[in-house]
Amino acid sequence: MPETLKGAGVSPGAGYGPAKRLVRDVPQPDPDARHGGDAAAEADRAAAAMEETARDLSERGERAGGDAAEVLNAQALMARDPALADDVRKRVDAGASAARAVSEAMAVYRQMLAGAGEYLAARVADLDDVRDRIVARLMGAPVPGVPDSDVPFVLVAGDLAPADTAVLDPERVVAFVTREGGPTSHTAILARSLGLPAVVACPGADTVAEGTMLLVDGATGEVAADPEPGAVEAATAASRARAAAAAQSTGPGRTADGHGIPLLANIGGPKDLPAALENGAEGVGLYRTEFLFLDRADAPGHEEQVAAYRTVLEAFPGGRVVVRTLDAGADKPLEFLPAAAEEPNPALGERGLRMMRRLPETLDAQLSALAEAERDTGAYLQVMAPMVTDAEDAAWFAAAAAKAGIQHAGVMIEVPAAALRARHIATHADFFSIGTNDLTQYACAADRETAGLGRFQDPWQPAVLDLVAASASSTAEAGRSCGVCGEAAADPLLACVLTGLGVTSLSMGASALPLVRAALARVELAQCRAAAEAARAARGPEEARKAAAEQLPGLAELGL
Amino acid sequence: MPETLKGAGVSPGAGYGPAKRLVRDVPQPDPDARHGGDAAAEADRAAAAMEETARDLSERGERAGGDAAEVLNAQALMARDPALADDVRKRVDAGASAARAVSEAMAVYRQMLAGAGEYLAARVADLDDVRDRIVARLMGAPVPGVPDSDVPFVLVAGDLAPADTAVLDPERVVAFVTREGGPTSHTAILARSLGLPAVVACPGADTVAEGTMLLVDGATGEVAADPEPGAVEAATAASRARAAAAAQSTGPGRTADGHGIPLLANIGGPKDLPAALENGAEGVGLYRTEFLFLDRADAPGHEEQVAAYRTVLEAFPGGRVVVRTLDAGADKPLEFLPAAAEEPNPALGERGLRMMRRLPETLDAQLSALAEAERDTGAYLQVMAPMVTDAEDAAWFAAAAAKAGIQHAGVMIEVPAAALRARHIATHADFFSIGTNDLTQYACAADRETAGLGRFQDPWQPAVLDLVAASASSTAEAGRSCGVCGEAAADPLLACVLTGLGVTSLSMGASALPLVRAALARVELAQCRAAAEAARAARGPEEARKAAAEQLPGLAELGL
Repeated sequence: MPETLKGAGVSPGAGYGPAKRLVRDVPQPDPDARHGGDAAAEADRAAAAMEETARDLSERGERAGGDAAEVLNAQALMARDPALADDVRKRVDAGASAARAVSEAMAVYRQMLAGAGEYLAARVADLDDVRDRIVARLMGAPVPGVPDSDVPFVLVAGDLAPADTAVLDPERVVAFVTREGGPTSHTAILARSLGLPAVVACPGADTVAEGTMLLVDGATGEVAADPEPGAVEAATAASRARAAAAAQSTGPGRTADGHGIPLLANIGGPKDLPAALENGAEGVGLYRTEFLFLDRADAPGHEEQVAAYRTVLEAFPGGRVVVRTLDAGADKPLEFLPAAAEEPNPALGERGLRMMRRLPETLDAQLSALAEAERDTGAYLQVMAPMVTDAEDAAWFAAAAAKAGIQHAGVMIEVPAAALRARHIATHADFFSIGTNDLTQYACAADRETAGLGRFQDPWQPAVLDLVAASASSTAEAGRSCGVCGEAAADPLLACVLTGLGVTSLSMGASALPLVRAALARVELAQCRAAAEAARAARGPEEARKAAAEQLPGLAELGL
Repeated sequence: MPETLKGAGVSPGAGYGPAKRLVRDVPQPDPDARHGGDAAAEADRAAAAMEETARDLSERGERAGGDAAEVLNAQALMARDPALADDVRKRVDAGASAARAVSEAMAVYRQMLAGAGEYLAARVADLDDVRDRIVARLMGAPVPGVPDSDVPFVLVAGDLAPADTAVLDPERVVAFVTREGGPTSHTAILARSLGLPAVVACPGADTVAEGTMLLVDGATGEVAADPEPGAVEAATAASRARAAAAAQSTGPGRTADGHGIPLLANIGGPKDLPAALENGAEGVGLYRTEFLFLDRADAPGHEEQVAAYRTVLEAFPGGRVVVRTLDAGADKPLEFLPAAAEEPNPALGERGLRMMRRLPETLDAQLSALAEAERDTGAYLQVMAPMVTDAEDAAWFAAAAAKAGIQHAGVMIEVPAAALRARHIATHADFFSIGTNDLTQYACAADRETAGLGRFQDPWQPAVLDLVAASASSTAEAGRSCGVCGEAAADPLLACVLTGLGVTSLSMGASALPLVRAALARVELAQCRAAAEAARAARGPEEARKAAAEQLPGLAELGL
């Protein structure tokens, strides 16, 4: 009988292929390991492993391109460092095995790096990775990282980090399954952006035997090992049907009975515009402006900012563009800003609007560039502040925006206190946009970046739905719109529930738009409301998903 | 006309005395500073400053005792390190000024320490403090730390950290005033535990001229500079009246019309029992058990745990004792537990019950020691888990407690999601206790430990009152009790509001009990309810305080 694992489906679709494991842990050489006596041969072995590792890293760098290439090439240089090679040779001459010599020599290197100021200290993890790769080669263990493969495979892992997936070839992966993670984890976000099925928080995922054939259902969270051929066919047929439905979905977002829910794109800069347009975005629901400010010694000038904003506004002549002002903090430091104080919990620190209240000239410059960019574009510009916590925050931001000539100033709702007091904030905000990722993080006190907290990183937690409902109903009473721009909007089932909760627009990574559009077109507003009520009556996220799906029979044909 | 500063009053009472400033920043020597030419004399100057600093640190250590003594004595040893002295002498011989030589030599020392593993790296801050003390002496600048004084004074500062106040002589301080901080900051907690008036989040506090006579009102948050003699008299009279009312308050906690609100003590171990009994605690509302587990290589044995729990249970033969199970995490690591993964935001990480779910044997051992301790003591033992997030958590804990023979298992409400879903958690919890400090931290996404976020660290934030109300009403519907054991309970005005919100008991640091008891005795339940409603209708914490006070006229005679 086929065995089935169960996790949380976080990116719908069916994937079928052999399991390949992400290797992260490498055996450590015995601290007393000595070679057989032929020091010259052992030194050659060490040198060869270092060179092969360097070559492999360079090749991966070439394939990856961009930022990843830089990191990988720097790692290749570490593996080729002549001082390191000398040190290894000396240790082998003194009797140490090649693996132990590399491990010890790199420990010295590591300590230097760790003590040499903040920038280099941050490279320690890269160095450790180089060491693990060399040591793995010398000990005949699998080299850490995403496996190479000639055939498409299901990637199974404890968890995936950005570094693991930088060189991932999406053509070769048919699905992800991880033991850890939640709907806002890197795995889930990556899978959705690649349109691949993914199951996270799946106990046993990382102990699946290499090569086991897996059928992954990214909607239900089921992972079947060695499934019956019939099951594979049915799942892939459903997946094809879903893809076809998504491909056929066009026009503005609306339910089957005509309730309009504008479907917008989250973008990180003008580079994301083609995908947004291709997938039929009706506008931009979240324009993250940090890219303009990263990795530079001075703030971007007025003209540069105006140009970047105008490019996006011009892409949606009739539509709306919602811009989020700079969201920096101790977790996202910017070189040209005064260094933030070291904070024990940066996510709970002086970030977003809190930092801008200390640096009003940076905010004012951005707001006036935005106001100028809007002129003559015909787009509908809305500008919102991140991390608004109370009415006083909202009033302060509204005043700054008005002074700069911004017509529509709003707030992000990502702090639970703001969701609870939306009625007071509405006095000072033209519109609301709920950031479900951070809202979930704070409501459940569970870091988005920490493994092992999957259940609490799930926007289906009924308490999070309560906060969305509280925001949507009090903003509606105040005559304000209330969108969602977190990952929750990209989940077709949850998109229907959010609609039922009273949310007025949905913004998501562009690749998720077609399926969400197709899902909305198959349900009626009253069903969405019933689904929202059923989900809020549930005791936990899994129960909420099931209860909602029961009220939305139209989604069954999409396999949701 | 006297000048008045305004901040948040966080510990009621009036204090009058000259301002003395906490010095934290020390001028840095010019990186090229050279001495006049007499290297021997300059070296002597350096050696003398190092020795004086060492002596001063030792003396402070002797006065402080306990943990502080250990830190201070270790710092004295650093200042007397012969290798450091050698290095300083060499640099002076090469022409550097004494201050620069010390600064440079200690930078080398610092780098070694920073690179030498986690334990020593944590000592870097202590070393920096030693350097600042020596350099300040050499440059003729004030030595950092709490000022010495022969007369009682008002301590003014940017903010106070535990290290600043470890050697504070409470007999010499009449009030605290800080620029930063909130009601849960170290300053506020320390002030309340010492019974001293305090005002935090007070702009301008750290620029008051040394020696200015200040009149501090720890209830209204007003700080008058050079006040009229009449004002001083009136304030001190009110303060005396309040002290007298507190001293006269006896018996169980109840409102003027007889609504009972048991007043309990928060304790950190048996050492806190005398103060609890002296201040008339009706039991223990929060027994933090971490002290048993700190700084030891192995978990405490069964008998040791039983003895520690029994001592507390026996102190309250008829009363209740609420024990919180071990609350460890990456922010509070315990030596004998496997090291927690490094977390970017430990407060949002695997702490409290989350960690115990990974280490059930540690929890089981504690629960069975608690069950045994209860036998034959006649006390009413309640055991609660920290960081419960949803109903599944509560059910897991209830099962573990039942297995160990615990009769009354409950949960702490400190995560917003738990407050919102108390009705589901109530199925698995015998009682609730709201931890307002963490609840505020998560609801407002504002770290308790970070300066500059004072407004968001205030339990008077109406959104926090909403969450308390939600918990209290749904637990009441389920027939469960719902106490508060955070700092909020120690604020007499807020204690009345909490009572009005439906909270059924209040637990606080023992020194706050008499005044809270006196406050409750002067108000009626209907007034408390009206005050709660008025506070929840407010838009911010200051407005909430004022609105509540208006509904509680009986507190005016206490100057609240």
